[in-house]
Amino acid sequence: MAKLNWGIVGGGEGSQIGLAHRMCSALDDKFIFKAGAMDIDPVRGKDYGVRLGLEASRAYGSWQEMLEAESQREDRLDLVTIATPNATHFEITKAFMESGFHVLCEKPMTMTLDEAKEIVALQKSTGQICAVNYGYSGYPMVRQMRDMVEQGQLGKVRSFVAEFSHGFHADAADADNPRVRWRYDPRQAGVSAQFADCGIHALHLASFVLGQNPQKLSADFAACVDGRELEDDALLALRMDKGAVGRLWSSSIAIGRMHGLTLQVFGEKGGLRWAQEQPNQLYWNPINQSVQILERGQNGLSAASGDASRLTIGHAEGAPVAFANIYKSIAKDIEARKAGSPLGEAEVAYPTAFDGMVSMAAIDAAAKSAKHESAWTALDY
Amino acid sequence: MAKLNWGIVGGGEGSQIGLAHRMCSALDDKFIFKAGAMDIDPVRGKDYGVRLGLEASRAYGSWQEMLEAESQREDRLDLVTIATPNATHFEITKAFMESGFHVLCEKPMTMTLDEAKEIVALQKSTGQICAVNYGYSGYPMVRQMRDMVEQGQLGKVRSFVAEFSHGFHADAADADNPRVRWRYDPRQAGVSAQFADCGIHALHLASFVLGQNPQKLSADFAACVDGRELEDDALLALRMDKGAVGRLWSSSIAIGRMHGLTLQVFGEKGGLRWAQEQPNQLYWNPINQSVQILERGQNGLSAASGDASRLTIGHAEGAPVAFANIYKSIAKDIEARKAGSPLGEAEVAYPTAFDGMVSMAAIDAAAKSAKHESAWTALDY
Amino acid sequence: MAKLNWGIVGGGEGSQIGLAHRMCSALDDKFIFKAGAMDIDPVRGKDYGVRLGLEASRAYGSWQEMLEAESQREDRLDLVTIATPNATHFEITKAFMESGFHVLCEKPMTMTLDEAKEIVALQKSTGQICAVNYGYSGYPMVRQMRDMVEQGQLGKVRSFVAEFSHGFHADAADADNPRVRWRYDPRQAGVSAQFADCGIHALHLASFVLGQNPQKLSADFAACVDGRELEDDALLALRMDKGAVGRLWSSSIAIGRMHGLTLQVFGEKGGLRWAQEQPNQLYWNPINQSVQILERGQNGLSAASGDASRLTIGHAEGAPVAFANIYKSIAKDIEARKAGSPLGEAEVAYPTAFDGMVSMAAIDAAAKSAKHESAWTALDY
Amino acid sequence: MAKLNWGIVGGGEGSQIGLAHRMCSALDDKFIFKAGAMDIDPVRGKDYGVRLGLEASRAYGSWQEMLEAESQREDRLDLVTIATPNATHFEITKAFMESGFHVLCEKPMTMTLDEAKEIVALQKSTGQICAVNYGYSGYPMVRQMRDMVEQGQLGKVRSFVAEFSHGFHADAADADNPRVRWRYDPRQAGVSAQFADCGIHALHLASFVLGQNPQKLSADFAACVDGRELEDDALLALRMDKGAVGRLWSSSIAIGRMHGLTLQVFGEKGGLRWAQEQPNQLYWNPINQSVQILERGQNGLSAASGDASRLTIGHAEGAPVAFANIYKSIAKDIEARKAGSPLGEAEVAYPTAFDGMVSMAAIDAAAKSAKHESAWTALDY
Repeated sequence: MAKLNWGIVGGGEGSQIGLAHRMCSALDDKFIFKAGAMDIDPVRGKDYGVRLGLEASRAYGSWQEMLEAESQREDRLDLVTIATPNATHFEITKAFMESGFHVLCEKPMTMTLDEAKEIVALQKSTGQICAVNYGYSGYPMVRQMRDMVEQGQLGKVRSFVAEFSHGFHADAADADNPRVRWRYDPRQAGVSAQFADCGIHALHLASFVLGQNPQKLSADFAACVDGRELEDDALLALRMDKGAVGRLWSSSIAIGRMHGLTLQVFGEKGGLRWAQEQPNQLYWNPINQSVQILERGQNGLSAASGDASRLTIGHAEGAPVAFANIYKSIAKDIEARKAGSPLGEAEVAYPTAFDGMVSMAAIDAAAKSAKHESAWTALDY
Repeated sequence: MAKLNWGIVGGGEGSQIGLAHRMCSALDDKFIFKAGAMDIDPVRGKDYGVRLGLEASRAYGSWQEMLEAESQREDRLDLVTIATPNATHFEITKAFMESGFHVLCEKPMTMTLDEAKEIVALQKSTGQICAVNYGYSGYPMVRQMRDMVEQGQLGKVRSFVAEFSHGFHADAADADNPRVRWRYDPRQAGVSAQFADCGIHALHLASFVLGQNPQKLSADFAACVDGRELEDDALLALRMDKGAVGRLWSSSIAIGRMHGLTLQVFGEKGGLRWAQEQPNQLYWNPINQSVQILERGQNGLSAASGDASRLTIGHAEGAPVAFANIYKSIAKDIEARKAGSPLGEAEVAYPTAFDGMVSMAAIDAAAKSAKHESAWTALDY
Repeated sequence: MAKLNWGIVGGGEGSQIGLAHRMCSALDDKFIFKAGAMDIDPVRGKDYGVRLGLEASRAYGSWQEMLEAESQREDRLDLVTIATPNATHFEITKAFMESGFHVLCEKPMTMTLDEAKEIVALQKSTGQICAVNYGYSGYPMVRQMRDMVEQGQLGKVRSFVAEFSHGFHADAADADNPRVRWRYDPRQAGVSAQFADCGIHALHLASFVLGQNPQKLSADFAACVDGRELEDDALLALRMDKGAVGRLWSSSIAIGRMHGLTLQVFGEKGGLRWAQEQPNQLYWNPINQSVQILERGQNGLSAASGDASRLTIGHAEGAPVAFANIYKSIAKDIEARKAGSPLGEAEVAYPTAFDGMVSMAAIDAAAKSAKHESAWTALDY
Repeated sequence: MAKLNWGIVGGGEGSQIGLAHRMCSALDDKFIFKAGAMDIDPVRGKDYGVRLGLEASRAYGSWQEMLEAESQREDRLDLVTIATPNATHFEITKAFMESGFHVLCEKPMTMTLDEAKEIVALQKSTGQICAVNYGYSGYPMVRQMRDMVEQGQLGKVRSFVAEFSHGFHADAADADNPRVRWRYDPRQAGVSAQFADCGIHALHLASFVLGQNPQKLSADFAACVDGRELEDDALLALRMDKGAVGRLWSSSIAIGRMHGLTLQVFGEKGGLRWAQEQPNQLYWNPINQSVQILERGQNGLSAASGDASRLTIGHAEGAPVAFANIYKSIAKDIEARKAGSPLGEAEVAYPTAFDGMVSMAAIDAAAKSAKHESAWTALDY
């Protein structure tokens, strides 16, 4: 199969996320980097694109220019990644989708729930791919968890415990650091800081693995560092749409936690535990037996897990491979469409606009609950 | 200093808790086992006592008999441990205290908050020792945490995250097992099951380490195994009386967790992490530095931590030593009283009737909150 | 069964090992502390004994006095523990055994291999118990390993890897510290320092678990800290008498290792891994399956493991309980003898004089090999 | 800087190592895949190359064809990776170097020590880059260790302990599996199996980190699985050329070990511990202080470590990134040469032909020692 043409909006020079997308899209020989509008400054953006190897004609000065030119090419892009500042995701995603492009949008997909609903509607009406980069769902052992749940190895899932906590916003001396401050300012960040930024990854992960979406929740938001208006520490109780009970903690003041994304799932027949920081091991306890350590790459794991795994057992495989798996899953869908048989819903392994919308609904509901004495609040989607 | 005379009510043949108390009280050559009323069956109790080495005259047939006889002896007991079924703790504790004995009561101290308040009042009026066996607070590294907080190494404590979860009540097939069933039956267990049984240990640990008591809370109780009336999974948000934010999760259906009592504490200047299952290591992250692994027994730990530590660094020291430290702390107070200078409040390292009362208040508040849509509820003490 | 009378030679005031023996002998209500000759200074020794609760007549001024007096008592000691300086172990052990006492001797049993052979001969001729305190073999999960090997769960054992390393003699500035210096002085410590002191525990553990004794070895000794004559770092290759291959590393300059005693065992059908610092977990990998974490106290472990375990699963049980299991195993044998049916060889779970002799032979062979370019050297026993 | 042209010999369809090289060379936007002779079957090789995006004219049928054609191009390859079967490495590497190409050769560089010396001589006389893929040295925390040693943070290094063990050749039932069998057949694999295949990575890692090369060694080789002629378990004692003592264990029958490459380094002032399976953490114990956990990406690490790290702290970064760092380090040298200022010896961070030669000398010496009763044997290089 020929390579797929890939382009990016945003991710200019010095951007870590831009590097990550180029690195991860290239990892599997599926996508080839063909076009970009990489900087708000047209000259800088074009120059950078050319230095990265783009043809000069496809190193664009703006996303509008890129949209127009690419729309008219025979060899137009097969996938456009949106990695611009958050506030612009909605507009750019919408524009590219309306012109018939498949899109992978960085998280958050939109700034409001209404916008998110609009994207979902657009996705449904066009049938285009709209993926959202909840990249942690690309880890092989996360997919293993999902498959074990789906295949019934846990029996009915009763509950999950999800965390995403770090300690890098704990320093009060750092409170005026503009890189930190805006995140806790409702005028810039919206109704939620830590839950919207990190906690939502944990919630997506749980939803992805359980195959259940959050239905209602009770939230406690705390602003522990003096002077913050938005929460830097959040606790949520949840009920999922197929009955699972949820517990979620997310903090940015948890000194000693690095990038503490973890998920535990408890069912009638067993329990699972996974942590992003040591992603190659999955702890599985079938009820009334010993805990087993499932290793990425071992025999007997699910097909999806194996497919997402590149190196032999015991090699530390990490986040770049996980993120690359999002691209791999999208490529699989694009190639299937080109071959005339798009994936069925159950086969789609990448996070979608629907997930992006549920996230917005969860953030809204959590902020509302936190403001109203942790009252249980339904998600509106 | 001569040994202190020790006796026990309950803890008869086959009782694990009785063995633990005899083992742990003896560990330091402080207490000598002199009397007991160890069984509801007088003959069996006396016989067992004698077989354990008691003089026949002090192997009693009932606690009432023991109370009367010991009250009249010159060499009366210095400490009486109450390890009977929960519903009898209040009555027996009260009776021994009223007769001038120091008491160590198994947890829970009482069945109701009102009874707990009565014990606290009695403790205050008599000045007797009334200790309650929140034994995990005896771990050397728990005391190290407390000292680090008190000495200001963390700065103001902003939050804690406490857990006590296991998976041993997860088996639905086991639901009719009488050893399990009564715990989830409000007619036998009261208003709370898992939080009252396990979660309360985690809350005590946090209070002990922080030097703060819970003031209000929001709780979500879930009965995940079919047929249960009381919760087998609880999530609490809390506010402590000096401002710390609390998160607490306790579950008995968390398959894969064994005896998962953990505490994380986050302050302005650093974070701490400790787990009962590997109690000899304490993870300490001073802000903007690397995480350090503090080892039980290493140089530079606090005096209280050193005092609670028996073996050189690197030896696995465990729960029996921790429980023995409760006895050691009580012995220190008794000896100080005999020497005419009882410990000041700040020097008392064992959990007291006050802690027992706060626990009852927390259980009441949590059950109330859980029944009322997780509404924030103040503790009444 | 009435309690057994226990006494100790050595372990005077301030001695950690003395406290450990009193603590661990008492842990199970089997032994009662009845006599001692605890100090080289008769007055100090008697005084300390009385303060610990001994009757004045059984707080002796010397071991000779104790031997004579106890030999004539009706209620003579059932077990005598020898916890004096190393150079006196042989003489005292021999004297008590010759007078018909059962003995538990601290490690090393003797200073020379010839002496060790003499004790073994004496043990055989008298039939008395002569136990040697390789206390780590008392851990429940060590006994579990032994039982798994014996029951054939690993198939034929092919190899083991044992370590006992720490870093507490790494500080060159500490080299003149008398507490450290003597250990590396052949005039005081004999032919080996680190292997004889620590490594030998690892070798005993391997022998105990495998049910195989070392037959020949190749050793490399290194004195890494300037000025040392004896080794502070040792590496051994071994062959055991039933064919297993052995690898053993022991160091006292391994900064960052605390009390790093570990054992891995590899057989045809599976592999085991255990570490003293987290002794409640045993990692078991049946071939071509996942690694399982066996937890102390879980269902399905061996009878010996269960018998050595005191607390329910998940509680951190540590070294004091392990050492107490040595006493428990000795008590079982004494009680069986009193009941007229001494344990068979296979039922003896405590380390014996034979183990002490093999250790001396291993130390001799290793020192010889290390002096001769690591030439393979047979053990002479 | 324009991209560098990269090509590969070997690594055809279905080859994991080929995928790894394409993935890792591409990770940093430094190299662009321009040519290949990827299969022993010319048609299959060309076809695969084209499918991977090569121009048809640069998808070659053989390495000879590739060598000839590329030698004549203006835009000739900047780097050629040799990923063919082991026995061909020498010939192909030599041929490309003689024609002026920079080469990255898979490990082992040659089949004999004499060949290795020839490559080293060739490298010296031509000044071309000849890198050898000891890819584990690309991990950021390995480079951190090297920098800490070089900067004297450990003081004089006294010793190291290196391991590389797995259990995937433990199954006797698998002994006739041709994928396994050839490795233990001296007619196909040479004088050593497990040490030459895996252990040598551990030795290179130690040499790289210490900045010391092995000088002499004593080895014990064991063939634990029936029917093997070459060792599946090896133990080595070593002395390095600047005085460090070495211990190395490598096994392929260690059931339960996955890809167990670890390194511990002990110096006068501190100790380090690192494991490939959790490569983002480095345990550092400065003497007389607590163990610290250094996290990949944290502030204060060395420049080389930071340069080798792509993601923010806490993300699991793994083997693909480590291998990519070998390419990154080579690219840095190529670019420096293009700019007219090749790197100095100390700046070269990738493993070289010299390392490949030392490895061959170590394998020879170990096999010799193992055959002669573990006699100490000098490396001949």
